Amino acid sequence: MIEARTRVGAETRHNVLRARRMGIDTYQEPVVYMRRDCTVCRSEGFESRSRVRLSTPTRQIVATLNVVAEHLLVSGEAGLSESAWQLLDLTDQSPLAVSHADPVESFGHVRAKLFDRVLAASDIEALVRDVAARRYSDVQLSAFLAACVGDRLAPDEIVALTGAMVAVGETLTWDAPQVFDKHCVGGLPGNRTTPLVVAIVAACGLVMPKTSSRAITSPAGTADTMETLAPVDLSLSHMRRVVEQEGGCLVWGGAVDLSPADDVLIRVERELDLDSEAQLVASVLSKKISAGSTHALIDVPVGPTAKVRDGDAARRLGALLERTGAALGLNVDVIQTDGSQPVGRGIGPALEARDVLAVLQGHESAPADLRARAAALAGAILERGAVCAGGQGVQHALETLDDGRAWRKFQAICEAQGGLRTPPVAAHQAPAVAVRAGRIAAIDNRRLARLAKLAGAPQAPAAGVELLARAGDRVAAGEPVLRVHAETPGELEYALEYLSRHPDLVGIDPADREVRS
Amino acid sequence: MIEARTRVGAETRHNVLRARRMGIDTYQEPVVYMRRDCTVCRSEGFESRSRVRLSTPTRQIVATLNVVAEHLLVSGEAGLSESAWQLLDLTDQSPLAVSHADPVESFGHVRAKLFDRVLAASDIEALVRDVAARRYSDVQLSAFLAACVGDRLAPDEIVALTGAMVAVGETLTWDAPQVFDKHCVGGLPGNRTTPLVVAIVAACGLVMPKTSSRAITSPAGTADTMETLAPVDLSLSHMRRVVEQEGGCLVWGGAVDLSPADDVLIRVERELDLDSEAQLVASVLSKKISAGSTHALIDVPVGPTAKVRDGDAARRLGALLERTGAALGLNVDVIQTDGSQPVGRGIGPALEARDVLAVLQGHESAPADLRARAAALAGAILERGAVCAGGQGVQHALETLDDGRAWRKFQAICEAQGGLRTPPVAAHQAPAVAVRAGRIAAIDNRRLARLAKLAGAPQAPAAGVELLARAGDRVAAGEPVLRVHAETPGELEYALEYLSRHPDLVGIDPADREVRS
Repeated sequence: MIEARTRVGAETRHNVLRARRMGIDTYQEPVVYMRRDCTVCRSEGFESRSRVRLSTPTRQIVATLNVVAEHLLVSGEAGLSESAWQLLDLTDQSPLAVSHADPVESFGHVRAKLFDRVLAASDIEALVRDVAARRYSDVQLSAFLAACVGDRLAPDEIVALTGAMVAVGETLTWDAPQVFDKHCVGGLPGNRTTPLVVAIVAACGLVMPKTSSRAITSPAGTADTMETLAPVDLSLSHMRRVVEQEGGCLVWGGAVDLSPADDVLIRVERELDLDSEAQLVASVLSKKISAGSTHALIDVPVGPTAKVRDGDAARRLGALLERTGAALGLNVDVIQTDGSQPVGRGIGPALEARDVLAVLQGHESAPADLRARAAALAGAILERGAVCAGGQGVQHALETLDDGRAWRKFQAICEAQGGLRTPPVAAHQAPAVAVRAGRIAAIDNRRLARLAKLAGAPQAPAAGVELLARAGDRVAAGEPVLRVHAETPGELEYALEYLSRHPDLVGIDPADREVRS
Repeated sequence: MIEARTRVGAETRHNVLRARRMGIDTYQEPVVYMRRDCTVCRSEGFESRSRVRLSTPTRQIVATLNVVAEHLLVSGEAGLSESAWQLLDLTDQSPLAVSHADPVESFGHVRAKLFDRVLAASDIEALVRDVAARRYSDVQLSAFLAACVGDRLAPDEIVALTGAMVAVGETLTWDAPQVFDKHCVGGLPGNRTTPLVVAIVAACGLVMPKTSSRAITSPAGTADTMETLAPVDLSLSHMRRVVEQEGGCLVWGGAVDLSPADDVLIRVERELDLDSEAQLVASVLSKKISAGSTHALIDVPVGPTAKVRDGDAARRLGALLERTGAALGLNVDVIQTDGSQPVGRGIGPALEARDVLAVLQGHESAPADLRARAAALAGAILERGAVCAGGQGVQHALETLDDGRAWRKFQAICEAQGGLRTPPVAAHQAPAVAVRAGRIAAIDNRRLARLAKLAGAPQAPAAGVELLARAGDRVAAGEPVLRVHAETPGELEYALEYLSRHPDLVGIDPADREVRS
């Protein structure tokens, strides 16, 4: 037991600089810029990549320091990146106290997990609190995500992670005994059933206040697709009005601060292009629980190039979802679906929106597979909600589509959210053709998704891939098989270059050519 | 098999901007700044955190994009961070071609490893090549390091990792049949034996061209300490002259481009404060092999708060070091040493240098433990090099210290490296005292190291901790136990705050107070 004999005066801790908006977009990691000759920088021993605490009378964040040349700032100023500026809610030249950031103690739990130690619920709560408060640097977030990959988190740790992610955000409550939700674990390009399911289920009188995420590693999330059809960036009170009026909504979850730790993690997951089962379960279920759902239906597509590759993996994931949900009071049903090939024609926000509209409007050209999948999911919810008897759900859902009720409900929801929009069309398009005649044997979902992303999806809403043929179809040599859509020539070329390196993205079996000729 | 029917003209790919040095130090991650309205940015679909390829006629790097407001750059300019500017070796307004960076294919191997798949040597080679070429973002480097923690890498993978790290850098060769090296795996504050070992061994006629690293997670690396005594940032040709003349040197390994992938990884490891056994073995041995060593002696301190906590862990690490070395043609000897408490008096670059000088100069005040440890290590090398018979090494080493030969050799080496320096003294110091009388029962190495780091070590060379008592010593209440040294008041206070939260950094057993009184 020792103690310091002398204490440095507390006033030296309050180093105050004047805030200046630098106009530099570092994405979400807050960055502070300080002059090389800044007295605060020198007296505190700061250097580039030091973690620094920035405080105003009402807010406090941790930012990463970049030391800058004298000409970029006036003496006594601290520059802020866009994200730091917004988090601190500053005005130009307002005072900003600068000090060392305390070491993030909870990162010790990440280290422990990397060494395969079991974490207590309180460890995980501390960790998630710090993540949500943006106390982790991007590099630390990356290590945390890596620590959760595979089966490193035990079921109890996943329950704790999910519960902690709920606890750090808002939780919605609804004046209804049953509140439904659905989710698809992804990996299947174009599988945009959610807008259809919400329209059918709400048209049948059940409550389904749907919050969706933007894409993590896919070319489009439901929120990205819906945004091409209606505003999705709704306040909580606006969302409530929509649900009270229409029984359902289709909004972006990030706008209502449900599970904010998840939003912080997702952007690093995207950069790593890395999904872990534990993060998947915690992310999905924390959003559902925070949204006030009592019942969640989870669609798990299974296929060799889907996110879940075989029945065993799907059963394991399903069991984990059900167990975690049950531990936290959420009734989870899991449906395995065919994940062998893309769903619908479009991959990318606007292209998928077009498919959704075609199904709702009952066009002849509407993709039959998308319609069938939506009916299967909506049917399961209708049965669970006792709208119809067991075994009658799919039929009931199809009738709701066919008689126009689902389309009317969808329009009403979009209007309540701020108005139905027409999805944009890409200015730059180019087809890819079969190099030989034959039967389309396989489509690589992962490479197809990458192709759509290289074309600009989801950031460029009109970008993506339009499939012109499906597995099993016979094609002639030179016949178009897909069309790449991009908003810029650079992205179109980037995607086509990728295609030229991966011609087997679509496999064609020439043995079947005679059948056609 | 499909192909694109139309190709976009190749000329659109060559988007050329004029380079401008922004004067922003982002540490090692290269960052490029582009205006929000930049045509290249828009046509390529770039956004903040996009990975972008920057090319000059002779060089090419991948940088992270930050989109900036119009006032920071003239139209047609691209701003470069200090690291990007140096890597590209630019001059102001020189043309810079900007394009999408190819996805780093080898990162797929990192993902596979996170899912516990075994990597082939060729996978690891591709990965290390990309790391050394700075194609990985900091977030990706973090995931790679996390993937190597624990026993995730199999012995063969560690051999492949070590070999790949050697292959991407320079390899030195020496005109001597036996070339000696030593290394301490660390975790023991103040254990600065290397300058002593080199001086003794070279004084006895063996060849020991020592390259050392800077601190990773400790308050001082050997290169940090040596830099307070002599220049260590030597060119390869300068290093050769020193070794030819004196038989030994003490230089910073980073300056001679040995195992450059290791240097890239180390800075992220430092930010994560995370060491893995696999990275440790690969880092240590790749440096030794690259440096042209035939024999390496590895000091593994074992203690409850050292990096290696017990004999089992030390034996496992030792076996891994020996096995990996043998597979790559390096003869590795491992010595377990006492890691129960810090070595010497000083912790931090200059404070450790003072201890080294005291031992070399034979001061009465010289720390006996540091002298004994250096003699044990040097003795093992002298025996291995047949300078003396087995069992005579320690005695031979002590004689070389006592008769002044080691001190003369050390001075000669420092002069050859550019001149012996006097270590700096910290401007701000404060003692910590015992809060009660008793016997010092334990010193927490990890917290002591953190205290020294919070005081500014190793970036501030004079900063650190000076121990005024050792485990087993009896102290009176109020008696100084250690002294914190800092170069700035802010750092001194930061360290003292940490001390106030962790008074048990030094444990005092009051049961023993009567013995003293």
